[in-house]
Amino acid sequence: MCEASVYISKDGKEELILEEVDIIRPENGKFYLRSITGEQMQVEGEIKEISLLNHKIVLERKSPR
Amino acid sequence: MCEASVYISKDGKEELILEEVDIIRPENGKFYLRSITGEQMQVEGEIKEISLLNHKIVLERKSPR
Repeated sequence: MCEASVYISKDGKEELILEEVDIIRPENGKFYLRSITGEQMQVEGEIKEISLLNHKIVLERKSPR
Repeated sequence: MCEASVYISKDGKEELILEEVDIIRPENGKFYLRSITGEQMQVEGEIKEISLLNHKIVLERKSPR
């Protein structure tokens, strides 16, 4: 299966927020995530890096402006 | 293998820009893409939708502001 784990990068560390993610799309200024098991969430942040062969997507919080 | 094809959405159509993409990351205000065969490019746009089980990533050009 080709789903990925989604992490949020904070203070130089990566925190796992959802595993086995299939769908990622922007929604209401956040990212909507849906896993293959049907778990859904919305996360604030921007794409930092996607590495599909590593099954890994890293988001990063925007700095306040 | 879990790489994906990257498309750009234009006028309601999706145009394939790079296949077998492994790495996607923001770089210089664009997205840097790298395929498993080593092909690299930079594309303007934002994430519209990622569907990993479909091996499909759709980018969308930002409207001029």
